[in-house]
Amino acid sequence: MSENVFMSRAISLAKKNVLAGGGPFGAIIVKDGHIIAEGVNQVTLRNDPTAHAEVQAIREACRVLCTFDLSGCEIYTSCEPCPMCFSAIYWAHLKSVYYAADHSDAEKAGFADAHIYREIELDEEKRSVRFINIDHSHKLLPFECWTDNNDKTEY
Amino acid sequence: MSENVFMSRAISLAKKNVLAGGGPFGAIIVKDGHIIAEGVNQVTLRNDPTAHAEVQAIREACRVLCTFDLSGCEIYTSCEPCPMCFSAIYWAHLKSVYYAADHSDAEKAGFADAHIYREIELDEEKRSVRFINIDHSHKLLPFECWTDNNDKTEY
Repeated sequence: MSENVFMSRAISLAKKNVLAGGGPFGAIIVKDGHIIAEGVNQVTLRNDPTAHAEVQAIREACRVLCTFDLSGCEIYTSCEPCPMCFSAIYWAHLKSVYYAADHSDAEKAGFADAHIYREIELDEEKRSVRFINIDHSHKLLPFECWTDNNDKTEY
Repeated sequence: MSENVFMSRAISLAKKNVLAGGGPFGAIIVKDGHIIAEGVNQVTLRNDPTAHAEVQAIREACRVLCTFDLSGCEIYTSCEPCPMCFSAIYWAHLKSVYYAADHSDAEKAGFADAHIYREIELDEEKRSVRFINIDHSHKLLPFECWTDNNDKTEY
């Protein structure tokens, strides 16, 4: 029952956001049965291609809880996450993802989620963006500094 | 030649960022042969799990250029992008990605990029995060509002 109520809120945010000039996506973060953060797609409104609903909700939840780790929290999103948001969910350690519309619905509405999922699985030379590996002699130096640093905050 | 110089800058940012308390990653955005934005991993410093070097550089470049579309720009990153940054690069319409260290180097240093790439390709029921599709009766409503909105800014 509550799952449907939470999803209604995410969908309602998505719908209202279109009227506000944003993209048709909304998301909420739930902890212990309560909504602690909300997000909507503000790519064009904020000139930020990473301002998807899920990313915005994750950033807001982290701000509210003063942490970069949302373990134990759940996300409700009006549409299945694109691979950027998928990965943000993993980096944030969310435990569950509830979604309504799916990639194919998003693709029909003109959003490239499914395209990016397909590109990820391609070999570099077949992708539409050029990927070039530079075998720089210092490429491992940042990781060596990281490993040697005893004061680091791991994540 | 300039490719190596740009990559040296990204690696140098990554190295300095470890000493500043951040993660071992740096990235720059180049347009017409000039660096227009830089980013470093500030996940723990900003309490933002999405504050990877590439995402930070993309957001900064968009701020500088007042746009959400970085067509024609290139990114140099000290390490092969995780799938979140990979997708952010696609959403921002960057044309090329130059990287030094790769996923396997990142994994050896304790970063889960490779794990998330593996998870993306799994069926939902096999993933470590639970994915639940809710067949909500209003799930297509945001897309219908979007399609019907003649004032929208597409992206």
